[in-house]
Amino acid sequence: MKEHLESALGKALKNARRSPAPPKLAAAMDYAIFPGGARVRPQLALAVANACGLDSPELAMASAVSVEFMHCASLVHDDLPAFDNADTRRGKPSVHKAFDEPLAVLCGDALIVLAFESLATASINSAERLGPMIGVLARSSGMPTGICSGQGWESEKTIDLRAYHKLKTASLFVAATQMGAISAGEDPEPWTELGTRIGEAFQVADDLKDFAETKASGKSNNRDAENDRPNAVLKLGEKGAINRLQDILSGAIASIPSCPGEVDLIKIVRKQAERLTPVQPLQKTL
Amino acid sequence: MKEHLESALGKALKNARRSPAPPKLAAAMDYAIFPGGARVRPQLALAVANACGLDSPELAMASAVSVEFMHCASLVHDDLPAFDNADTRRGKPSVHKAFDEPLAVLCGDALIVLAFESLATASINSAERLGPMIGVLARSSGMPTGICSGQGWESEKTIDLRAYHKLKTASLFVAATQMGAISAGEDPEPWTELGTRIGEAFQVADDLKDFAETKASGKSNNRDAENDRPNAVLKLGEKGAINRLQDILSGAIASIPSCPGEVDLIKIVRKQAERLTPVQPLQKTL
Repeated sequence: MKEHLESALGKALKNARRSPAPPKLAAAMDYAIFPGGARVRPQLALAVANACGLDSPELAMASAVSVEFMHCASLVHDDLPAFDNADTRRGKPSVHKAFDEPLAVLCGDALIVLAFESLATASINSAERLGPMIGVLARSSGMPTGICSGQGWESEKTIDLRAYHKLKTASLFVAATQMGAISAGEDPEPWTELGTRIGEAFQVADDLKDFAETKASGKSNNRDAENDRPNAVLKLGEKGAINRLQDILSGAIASIPSCPGEVDLIKIVRKQAERLTPVQPLQKTL
Repeated sequence: MKEHLESALGKALKNARRSPAPPKLAAAMDYAIFPGGARVRPQLALAVANACGLDSPELAMASAVSVEFMHCASLVHDDLPAFDNADTRRGKPSVHKAFDEPLAVLCGDALIVLAFESLATASINSAERLGPMIGVLARSSGMPTGICSGQGWESEKTIDLRAYHKLKTASLFVAATQMGAISAGEDPEPWTELGTRIGEAFQVADDLKDFAETKASGKSNNRDAENDRPNAVLKLGEKGAINRLQDILSGAIASIPSCPGEVDLIKIVRKQAERLTPVQPLQKTL
C-alpha cells in the first residue's frame, strides 16, 4: 500500500514539474514531499477506503494524496520564520532553509492547489463524489474549522486551547477518514469519530514522546507549562497519559462503523496503536 | 451585476468567519477582499457565463467569487516582505502591514482554500461541471502553469520573460473566461483566447499607466529597463503601445465565440477597452 502511495505522490509531482515550471520551485515541492514521514494520514484514508469496499481505487488514492499534500503544505508554512522559524524538519533543513523564503511560501501555496487538483483529476468517472470530498478537504484546512483556523488562533491574545489543538491536529485525520469513505461511495459522517480519536491519540503520543526525550536529555520540560498549552503528561502524569492514550485508541476501534473490511481496519488501527504507545515507560511506571 | 458579486463575496466570507474562527484572521480575510479593486476577473467570468446562456446562476457566481478569492490571495502573498515587500495595496496598508506577517500568510492560504470550496458549495445541482472548473482554477493558480509558477520564475537566474508574464498576468483571466463558460455548460476551450488577450491588454495598459505616472512625476522610469522586464512602452514607444493595446482588444472581441449573448458581451469588452485605453496621451502623441 505504501509503495503505491509513494508512486502516486511522485506521479502528481512529476506533473507539477512539467514545462513551463520554474526548476527551483519544482525542486522545493519535491523536497517537501520526499522522503516522507510516517504518511499516517494518507494511509488512514486508504485503509478506510479499503474497509468501505474500495469501489474506486483511483479516487481512494487521490484522497490519500490530497490529504498528504495539504499536510506537507501546512508543515512548510508552519516552519517559516514568521511562525515556528524551524531550521529542520524530518531530520533535514526545512524548505525555507534549503531553498529560501519566497520559494517556501510558493511551495506551500502550490501544494494546497495540487491537493484540490488531485481530487478533480481522479474524479472523472465519479463526478458526484468530488464536491463532498472538496468540501471535506476545504473544511479541514481553511476557515473557520481547518488548520488555517487553528494556526490563526496563535495570533489571538486569548486562546481556546482545546479548540486550537483540535483544529490543528485532528482536522486532517478527520479529512482522511471522511474522504476515504466518500471515495468508496459511503456516508462520511460515521467515520468522523475514528479520525477525531486518532488525531487525539497522536497529540497524547507526541506529549509522551516529548516527555521521554526531555527525560533522556536530563533537561526539564516546562515549555508547554510556560505556554499554558494542554499537555497530557503534565496534566495526568506519564502513567496517566499512557492510560489515556490506550483509552482513546480503544474508543477509536470501537467507533469503526460496520463495513465490509471492518476486521482488517481494526488490525491496522491496532498496529498503529502499538506503534504509538511507548512500551518501556509503561513497564517502568506500572 | 457588481452588487450581486459584492454580496456573494461577502456571504462566502461570512461563512469563513463563523465560530470557531480566530477573529484577527477572519478580519484579515475581510480586509483583503473589501473594498475591492475593479473586480475585472470576476465580472469577466459573469459576463461570459451570461453570454453562454447562464443556465446555472449559482455556479456562474461561484466561478466569479473563486477567481476573485484566488486573485486576492496572490496579491496578499505577493506583497509579503519575502516578495515585493509592499507597504500599501489599493490605497491602504497591505495585509501584513495592517495585521502581521503570520496572519498575511494564513490569510492567503485560507483564501486559496475558500476559492476551491466556493466552487464545491455551488455545484450541488451540477456535479459534472465541478471537476472541470476545479481543474481550470488549479491550472491557472498552481504549478506548472499558474500564478505560483509565474512567481516562482522570479527565483530563477535565467527567466523566460514572456512565459513569466503570461503565467502571472494572463492565467486568471483565462480562468475567468473558461470557468464562466463551464458554469453555463459550455466547452471552455473556445474561450481561452478572450482570456489570454484581455490579460495581455491589462499588461500593456499597466505599462502605459506606469509611463503616464512617471512622466507626471518628472522622474525617469528605468525600473523595467534595469530589470530587463518586457515593457510595451519601452519597446514600442507610447503611441506604439497604445496601438498595440487597441489591436489586442480588437483581437479579443474578434475571438468571442458565437453564443446567445454575443452582442452584449462585445459591448462589455468594448467598455473595458475604453476604460483601459488612455485617451489623453493618445491625443497628444497622435
